[in-house]
Amino acid sequence: MLIKKEYLSQPQTENCTQNIFVKFLEYQTLSVDTKSLLLISRLRATLEWTDPDLAWNTSVYQFNEVILPVSKIWSPELHVTNGITTEMSHSSPDLLANSKGTVIHSVIINAQVICEVNLFNYPFASDKCPVAIQGWSRMGCGTNLVFGELKTVIASSGEWETGNATLERKRSDRNFILVPLSIKSTQPFITLVLPSILIVIADAVSFALPLGGGERNGFKVTLVLSFTMFLIILNDELPGDGECSPIIRFHFCCCLVILVVSMLWSMVMTRLFAEGRFGLFRQSKGPVSGNAGGGKAKEDEEVKAEVGVDVLGGVKDDAQMLRKVVNFLEALDAKTRESDRNQRFASKLDHIFFWFYLICGSAYLIIMNSVMVAYECSVDHFEFWY
Amino acid sequence: MLIKKEYLSQPQTENCTQNIFVKFLEYQTLSVDTKSLLLISRLRATLEWTDPDLAWNTSVYQFNEVILPVSKIWSPELHVTNGITTEMSHSSPDLLANSKGTVIHSVIINAQVICEVNLFNYPFASDKCPVAIQGWSRMGCGTNLVFGELKTVIASSGEWETGNATLERKRSDRNFILVPLSIKSTQPFITLVLPSILIVIADAVSFALPLGGGERNGFKVTLVLSFTMFLIILNDELPGDGECSPIIRFHFCCCLVILVVSMLWSMVMTRLFAEGRFGLFRQSKGPVSGNAGGGKAKEDEEVKAEVGVDVLGGVKDDAQMLRKVVNFLEALDAKTRESDRNQRFASKLDHIFFWFYLICGSAYLIIMNSVMVAYECSVDHFEFWY
Amino acid sequence: MLIKKEYLSQPQTENCTQNIFVKFLEYQTLSVDTKSLLLISRLRATLEWTDPDLAWNTSVYQFNEVILPVSKIWSPELHVTNGITTEMSHSSPDLLANSKGTVIHSVIINAQVICEVNLFNYPFASDKCPVAIQGWSRMGCGTNLVFGELKTVIASSGEWETGNATLERKRSDRNFILVPLSIKSTQPFITLVLPSILIVIADAVSFALPLGGGERNGFKVTLVLSFTMFLIILNDELPGDGECSPIIRFHFCCCLVILVVSMLWSMVMTRLFAEGRFGLFRQSKGPVSGNAGGGKAKEDEEVKAEVGVDVLGGVKDDAQMLRKVVNFLEALDAKTRESDRNQRFASKLDHIFFWFYLICGSAYLIIMNSVMVAYECSVDHFEFWY
Amino acid sequence: MLIKKEYLSQPQTENCTQNIFVKFLEYQTLSVDTKSLLLISRLRATLEWTDPDLAWNTSVYQFNEVILPVSKIWSPELHVTNGITTEMSHSSPDLLANSKGTVIHSVIINAQVICEVNLFNYPFASDKCPVAIQGWSRMGCGTNLVFGELKTVIASSGEWETGNATLERKRSDRNFILVPLSIKSTQPFITLVLPSILIVIADAVSFALPLGGGERNGFKVTLVLSFTMFLIILNDELPGDGECSPIIRFHFCCCLVILVVSMLWSMVMTRLFAEGRFGLFRQSKGPVSGNAGGGKAKEDEEVKAEVGVDVLGGVKDDAQMLRKVVNFLEALDAKTRESDRNQRFASKLDHIFFWFYLICGSAYLIIMNSVMVAYECSVDHFEFWY
Amino acid sequence: MLIKKEYLSQPQTENCTQNIFVKFLEYQTLSVDTKSLLLISRLRATLEWTDPDLAWNTSVYQFNEVILPVSKIWSPELHVTNGITTEMSHSSPDLLANSKGTVIHSVIINAQVICEVNLFNYPFASDKCPVAIQGWSRMGCGTNLVFGELKTVIASSGEWETGNATLERKRSDRNFILVPLSIKSTQPFITLVLPSILIVIADAVSFALPLGGGERNGFKVTLVLSFTMFLIILNDELPGDGECSPIIRFHFCCCLVILVVSMLWSMVMTRLFAEGRFGLFRQSKGPVSGNAGGGKAKEDEEVKAEVGVDVLGGVKDDAQMLRKVVNFLEALDAKTRESDRNQRFASKLDHIFFWFYLICGSAYLIIMNSVMVAYECSVDHFEFWY
Repeated sequence: MLIKKEYLSQPQTENCTQNIFVKFLEYQTLSVDTKSLLLISRLRATLEWTDPDLAWNTSVYQFNEVILPVSKIWSPELHVTNGITTEMSHSSPDLLANSKGTVIHSVIINAQVICEVNLFNYPFASDKCPVAIQGWSRMGCGTNLVFGELKTVIASSGEWETGNATLERKRSDRNFILVPLSIKSTQPFITLVLPSILIVIADAVSFALPLGGGERNGFKVTLVLSFTMFLIILNDELPGDGECSPIIRFHFCCCLVILVVSMLWSMVMTRLFAEGRFGLFRQSKGPVSGNAGGGKAKEDEEVKAEVGVDVLGGVKDDAQMLRKVVNFLEALDAKTRESDRNQRFASKLDHIFFWFYLICGSAYLIIMNSVMVAYECSVDHFEFWY
Repeated sequence: MLIKKEYLSQPQTENCTQNIFVKFLEYQTLSVDTKSLLLISRLRATLEWTDPDLAWNTSVYQFNEVILPVSKIWSPELHVTNGITTEMSHSSPDLLANSKGTVIHSVIINAQVICEVNLFNYPFASDKCPVAIQGWSRMGCGTNLVFGELKTVIASSGEWETGNATLERKRSDRNFILVPLSIKSTQPFITLVLPSILIVIADAVSFALPLGGGERNGFKVTLVLSFTMFLIILNDELPGDGECSPIIRFHFCCCLVILVVSMLWSMVMTRLFAEGRFGLFRQSKGPVSGNAGGGKAKEDEEVKAEVGVDVLGGVKDDAQMLRKVVNFLEALDAKTRESDRNQRFASKLDHIFFWFYLICGSAYLIIMNSVMVAYECSVDHFEFWY
Repeated sequence: MLIKKEYLSQPQTENCTQNIFVKFLEYQTLSVDTKSLLLISRLRATLEWTDPDLAWNTSVYQFNEVILPVSKIWSPELHVTNGITTEMSHSSPDLLANSKGTVIHSVIINAQVICEVNLFNYPFASDKCPVAIQGWSRMGCGTNLVFGELKTVIASSGEWETGNATLERKRSDRNFILVPLSIKSTQPFITLVLPSILIVIADAVSFALPLGGGERNGFKVTLVLSFTMFLIILNDELPGDGECSPIIRFHFCCCLVILVVSMLWSMVMTRLFAEGRFGLFRQSKGPVSGNAGGGKAKEDEEVKAEVGVDVLGGVKDDAQMLRKVVNFLEALDAKTRESDRNQRFASKLDHIFFWFYLICGSAYLIIMNSVMVAYECSVDHFEFWY
Repeated sequence: MLIKKEYLSQPQTENCTQNIFVKFLEYQTLSVDTKSLLLISRLRATLEWTDPDLAWNTSVYQFNEVILPVSKIWSPELHVTNGITTEMSHSSPDLLANSKGTVIHSVIINAQVICEVNLFNYPFASDKCPVAIQGWSRMGCGTNLVFGELKTVIASSGEWETGNATLERKRSDRNFILVPLSIKSTQPFITLVLPSILIVIADAVSFALPLGGGERNGFKVTLVLSFTMFLIILNDELPGDGECSPIIRFHFCCCLVILVVSMLWSMVMTRLFAEGRFGLFRQSKGPVSGNAGGGKAKEDEEVKAEVGVDVLGGVKDDAQMLRKVVNFLEALDAKTRESDRNQRFASKLDHIFFWFYLICGSAYLIIMNSVMVAYECSVDHFEFWY
Repeated sequence: MLIKKEYLSQPQTENCTQNIFVKFLEYQTLSVDTKSLLLISRLRATLEWTDPDLAWNTSVYQFNEVILPVSKIWSPELHVTNGITTEMSHSSPDLLANSKGTVIHSVIINAQVICEVNLFNYPFASDKCPVAIQGWSRMGCGTNLVFGELKTVIASSGEWETGNATLERKRSDRNFILVPLSIKSTQPFITLVLPSILIVIADAVSFALPLGGGERNGFKVTLVLSFTMFLIILNDELPGDGECSPIIRFHFCCCLVILVVSMLWSMVMTRLFAEGRFGLFRQSKGPVSGNAGGGKAKEDEEVKAEVGVDVLGGVKDDAQMLRKVVNFLEALDAKTRESDRNQRFASKLDHIFFWFYLICGSAYLIIMNSVMVAYECSVDHFEFWY
């Protein structure tokens, strides 16, 4: 018996193909790398094949079954065709052979499969990835796999959830396991979508902040920078752009631009609120401030004159002085009235912009959502078989 | 003796099962990956088995015990059934065989076990994970493990604490080590819970900040963004949602929403405080500002008229001018009184909201805490045995 | 047949070179490490060679083809000459030999190639990297590769996109695959370029913020710090400086300096706006504040004197008291007028700087863009062949 | 000679123990992982042992020394008993044997040792870790190590500094290297302790900021959030809580709570400063604002009445109008005086709290420091030997 | 020929040393780990040695050269003495032997060398690291290396730049490659030095911000926290303190302390500016506020009294009321004058501190720079040879 094994350490070649019966197949997704779109999976297969050289006459050697070390006899190799790496290891160093030459063995295959998952609707993405299992075969020679039962181990750890995988075939020798994957959307929703929604809402409500105090601009720049941070986090988690790259990235960009526009508008409005004009700073500013200066200068002279008169007229002093007080107050009043007018104008513009912002934003959101719901992006996962 | 060993390099098959006595088993948790729920553990086992082919007659060969290289004789393989990876290595390249064929050997098993720990009460979570140990066995043939003593090495480094593991069995050939794990709650408490509690308290106390100065909104947006940061940190440390996903994540989301609502309210109140009305900006604003403008315009005319009169009447000037002063001050007074009224109204609303906020928040906290204490989530850890 | 194989486990040496026909070559870029400029690629080659010692007479042994274990016969080794690491593994443990001694086998080569990609126009960079494939050869002895078809697997995951690779040769024994690589510019554009453009625009528009309230400086320092953050992120993603290091880094530095200068200017302007002078704080400040103080002191004395007079003169009190009121108001008016003048001066300076900033900034942007478009940086990728 | 070697590829068993003389031992700490308390070390040992089967008669074979490949003869194995992983590799593929059977060989051992370093005084922690070295031995059979010289390679890279290790023994077969480790405290001091001290000082000095402007609260919340960041960094670098977990973590928590309390106090004081009362917002507020409102309303009516009277009385107008002015100013004055009183009260409370804060803080610091200096925490490092 | 090879699978021992001619040596720095001071390098060596047992008579066997599998004959081993890890791999599975027994083979050595680079002038650091190459040799037996040509592959990726390495020797058997390394200072300059310089400049210019508005403190605390961030980044990139630890760390600490001191000073000045006194809050505050209160109280009484008188005197009313107005305005004026005086005092102190800050800062910078330029720190890199 011992001698026999030494002698059998070669593969068998009858009519150049060997039937391997994959009695039992257990599929398990170990992890999914969303960034580089890698599906790291593990297969446990129980193989059964007949090796006539391993048969013996039970009359000579009385045992019905015998345990053989796997390293001394030939065993078939399975690999994952679309895997970047495929490592097949024996689940035990021993295997069982019976007197008719039927060998039962179980192997473990660890494979990294590139699967360009459709991430179009990112936080709610789901797709089916094929894991192609083939034996070695070249020009009619090799092994031919016959599949039995498939069991999916559903381990719910990690970002992705694996559904019940099914065994399918494209051609007699092209079998694959179709693995349904769907993102657990809770975490990206909480980490990315919820804060970004809250930021956009806060930006809309921040129009309620008064234009004057400078508060609104500080608030808005904080929101913009936070949003940028979420954009960076999003880009760290998502893969680069392919056919079905997540639309949420484009959406975040749009939101960022909207936030920035609203911030810039708010800054310009602050200027308008404070000074009554904006835009062409220099030109229009010159004459106006000149006017104001001129007006004040005249007023000044008048006041000076009156002060000169002050010395002469005795009784008229009272009245003149009162008039000065009144003049001062009137100037103050005029100023506040003018600034009031400016502020009312700025507020009105601000309100118009707010409604414009609200309507455009809502329209954008409706379009974006309908695109997300309506458009279905499909990826051909079988490019590796040509 | 030397020749004999060469000849024995095969597994033994008497009645197709071999009894392996696991004299001593040492369990050690190397680390627990909370994110992907992996338990990385290390087992050191001292095995003892009888290999009749290794026995010798002490009369022929006088030594009682002999040291053999492990690579030249058969040795049993243990594996961890629910492990993703199981690596068994020999703790030494030599083993000891005595003249009766009893072989003593020790092996080290490194295994990564997926264990969906119940994380419902996250910073205070604890659960028991099985580490199933089996020999190789197929259709009645194989090895049968008999267990002896189990020792747990309690290394308290890492995030998790391992209690005293116990050896249990589900079926005669289904032995497992039940490892009690509990999170050391100090670190997540300090890093996550304490700051978030402080933030919520600070948010509640920030109602003490005056509405007017714009300080409160800046304060609240800072708190909201910090809280978002904690939410992101939390999500980086915790696994995705499964059956018993930590409720603290949901709780943090609620807190974030509460913080944002309080921030938005505060912004709207600031508007109300400053302008006396809010919400439907445009419509109600139009007439009001028109009124104010109209009122002022009339006032203006009056003032203008009086200024015109000013030239004519000599003595009446004094009085008229004084009246203007008084008018100005009265207008100022009226304005401040009106803004005072607005502010009082805003403050009152603010107080009402504060109490509403306090009561709702407290109620929410009580409910959340009672759920955390009362509800027990249980996970079936034995799904791998079907 | 079995005996024959054992005997053939040596390489073949006819005229000291062996022709290897690489029938089929599949190139795949697994990933590109932008930071350390590493191209991690995977080649799958189907090799065909003739080993006369493996030929047999079909009359003696009737099979036309036979499957042999790869470990028992000699097989050629390919390596990637410019690779830091080259790992060749057999894609299957068996290979096919026919009766004429022709052997067909397929191998997988994983290689890490250092390729100093031209990153001059960083977010839009593209270059061609050679992956040199050679057999082993020394002093006329060795293997000679003859290439057949090349297929590129275009996997679009990751930061870089791989185009259609082509087979080229520099010398009869220097074959290489030229792999066209181009960065997917969407992600760096969104993460780096877009926010930095928005920051620079926000900085330009922030000149609209009033100088007085202190808002502008806070705004600008926030922008500067955010921009610094983007500079750090950029530097984390890009490699150190080489021949064709990305000009965007230099550009970001310039932008940072511009932002800081605009911030510093804004701070100095704030001072000027508030106090009417700046720069040589101490010297010019002394006399001015002395003047003001002196003027006020005089005024004080006057007021004191008048208060003293107040007791004596009965009727003159009215007038004098009124005069005091007028004096107070006039002083206030003068003060506001002076601060107005200061503010107008500061605003004018601010406008001049704004236009200067806008013109210089635009000029800089035009120059930078034309340099980016016009200048082509080329790297010699064949330094490893000397 | 060549044949002889083939024949000797077995371990030697004289009286079942073999003396191994470890002539020279070089210890080197490669790195220390503070987070998981792992000591990664490397040992280089020169072993010398006598293998009688390797002896030869120099008269037959004339060489005195012969170089043998290590894979063909037996060589002893050392391992680190308390190591998680122990990898022994041969430093060269050849070894030297002389004619008396004495074999000299050198091996390299890489080991990861769990060592629960006493981190109680964290940035100034130091401890001694044992690295137990044993040969293989079971029931009297095996190898017995005799140690010679020990040399420590002091490489000062990394966070920890290794002192001069010493060879010690607990029992005849329990030898260990005692490695003194001490943290280089410069880096944690600069990164953690210095900023946190500066933050606490800044918090104390920030009481100098005026209560009114809202500046102080913004300042304090910034400090609190920065401190939280340091707490998170600290927790990322330190291990979870064990027996001698660093007290600096507890200290940081206390500091955080102190900072938050001072922030909350400052917010409440701001309220008090602005409104004169705090705490029970609603109840006490209602009547007061009612009062104020009522008082103002009455005043209003009075003013209205006087305005009505205004038309009738001619001469009395002057006086009445003046009185109105005076009333207005007096009301303003009263208001400022009241708010002054409030502010003085708030300032006084603030000062009291400041001194309370200063005294409590100092007392706390003294106690904390004395605990850090006085208390010595000791860990039993020999739990692995039971 | 085939039989011959099997027989030669042993090392050769003539006079116990074997000369190995390293014809060609290619050195390449793969990466330098600045944090842990590791130099990861790769050597490609072409070895040539004579193995008399491999010689054959060309008359018997006609080939002049023969290709042999490397696993079947002895080949020398090189290692890097000061390497933590040294891995020698064969660059091809075949080697070339000619009829005289001369064997040519090429090997690849990957080594991690600890090299305590002199980082004293960090962003501009450069040093020379030895990579010691030795064959195996013990007590006169072993291999003796004779070196030929050395080529350095200059790959400019990574943080460090490798210059032209030279072959040197300390003793006949102690050869080493001296590798000149210099940091590419662009990246640390841009990421660390430039922002920190900008922060310090911004801090100096921020003295231009007015003391009153609370802006300056906010600005300075932002700068301090940003600087802390840079300190943390710096510490993450640099190794712990050794002999020649980078002085830039100490410099950053000093800068941080300077920034904090300037921030604290600014806070105290804000207090002084607002209240006219600082430091001993309670004591000096008590009486002063009492005074103010007393003064006001008296004033109050006076006013009250006058109001009482108001009812009695008819004509005197006018004058008295006017006097009240004047009193009010005078009190206001006095208050502003006092606060003006305070502010002038605070400004003066601020200016003095600014000049003090400027002078000290400049002096510090000059000293620091001259130390950086003048002081040369040298490390002994040959401690591993004792």
